Amino acid sequence: MRIVLMGSGNVATHLGKALHQAGHSIGQVYSRTVVHAQALAQQLHATPITDLCELDRSADWYILSIKDDALLPLIEQLPVLEGLVTHTAGSVPLAILSRFQHHGVFYPFQTFSKSTEVDFKTIPLLVEGNAGQTANTLLQLAQEISDKAQFASSDQRGQLHIAAVFACNFVNHMYALADDLLKSHQLPFDLLIPLIKETAAKMEQLSPQLSQTGPASRNDQQIIQKHIQSLEDQPHHQELYKTLTKSILDKLSL
Amino acid sequence: MRIVLMGSGNVATHLGKALHQAGHSIGQVYSRTVVHAQALAQQLHATPITDLCELDRSADWYILSIKDDALLPLIEQLPVLEGLVTHTAGSVPLAILSRFQHHGVFYPFQTFSKSTEVDFKTIPLLVEGNAGQTANTLLQLAQEISDKAQFASSDQRGQLHIAAVFACNFVNHMYALADDLLKSHQLPFDLLIPLIKETAAKMEQLSPQLSQTGPASRNDQQIIQKHIQSLEDQPHHQELYKTLTKSILDKLSL
Repeated sequence: MRIVLMGSGNVATHLGKALHQAGHSIGQVYSRTVVHAQALAQQLHATPITDLCELDRSADWYILSIKDDALLPLIEQLPVLEGLVTHTAGSVPLAILSRFQHHGVFYPFQTFSKSTEVDFKTIPLLVEGNAGQTANTLLQLAQEISDKAQFASSDQRGQLHIAAVFACNFVNHMYALADDLLKSHQLPFDLLIPLIKETAAKMEQLSPQLSQTGPASRNDQQIIQKHIQSLEDQPHHQELYKTLTKSILDKLSL
Repeated sequence: MRIVLMGSGNVATHLGKALHQAGHSIGQVYSRTVVHAQALAQQLHATPITDLCELDRSADWYILSIKDDALLPLIEQLPVLEGLVTHTAGSVPLAILSRFQHHGVFYPFQTFSKSTEVDFKTIPLLVEGNAGQTANTLLQLAQEISDKAQFASSDQRGQLHIAAVFACNFVNHMYALADDLLKSHQLPFDLLIPLIKETAAKMEQLSPQLSQTGPASRNDQQIIQKHIQSLEDQPHHQELYKTLTKSILDKLSL
């Protein structure tokens, strides 16, 4: 396929590389910032463009990989396109692209940073198309670069994003709260690393319901009360400790 | 050193093996349950005992590695001992052992399960002694089996345990809540595994403060409100979403 990549951020970079390696030709890389367009285009043997007038209107596939709130303004500026037009955003519905005849979503479900190499094969790739044919084409393309390609509706993507907020953003916040507690007692965060890695690694073998450990899961009120008391000086942490302990207890009694 | 290991659970098992491999002699393994004592003693080329009358009173080191609430009753039954007496519990103060002349704590900070092999070298080992000489001896012993041996007071161990509740138990609970959300939309938990692993792996390179991502960390109210609305049917998850989002926002504005 001859692809036009619109965007030059983390997702555009990793996705562009994976598709290039899979044998597709990235014809153009579009970014409003010329140095960004040039930098990524060079890596992909593509032509950088910064003006939509230069857009190749006969490409097979247009991938819009830019910030959520910049998507609609860009879509409105695009000419009529016969190729496939997709975005890569988890929380944006398919329908935002409805002015194009063939449109879809191509959503890689992972956090990316530009500097870290990514094995795309292991990353879930969720696709959706406005028609069966489009969806099937996108699934085939996704399977070329990922072993975890599957269909997902806009609703499912939305829910997956919320699940990711719990399993990634809120988890990171738990790490930050733990770090606060250690700092206040002159202990290095490093002490937690083996435990953090083991807790995550367990998820490949056990369901999170079965792997729940700790005072709340044993309903060990002696330790729970001791912990709450120790957190007297850190009311914010104390409040969260109570709330999350209660949440675990509630789940056990379901 | 000639060691008596009291207990046959996960910590006793892994610690006993590590000390045996480091060249120490495990003379006896004590457990009230004869099959448990026998099973572990066999692995460590030790003598199993189930009766405290059989206890070798001239061993160099007694390691009490049993459940927190069983520690005090066992300690009260022990004879006067001249060797070093230590427990392995995170949340139990050193002072519980004060009836012995040389006493301390030898606390490996990791979750263990019997079936999983453990590389003790990577596990933080926190030691405390009732006198400088005892503490130094314990630190040296810890350094023989772990690259992460260090002193920690009873206060610090207590705080570390609370930090672990956040970084391990509450994190696991976040995984469980994410699983609920996926199940309700017919999506497999497996989709989250790469994200979970990456979120944990980041902690080896970045502080949790710097690695915080997601709608709350960007104060993206449009997405936050959309997520809260999507959780209408799951009031428990909705409430926690609000509480944790607020907690991240509060942290940012500090």
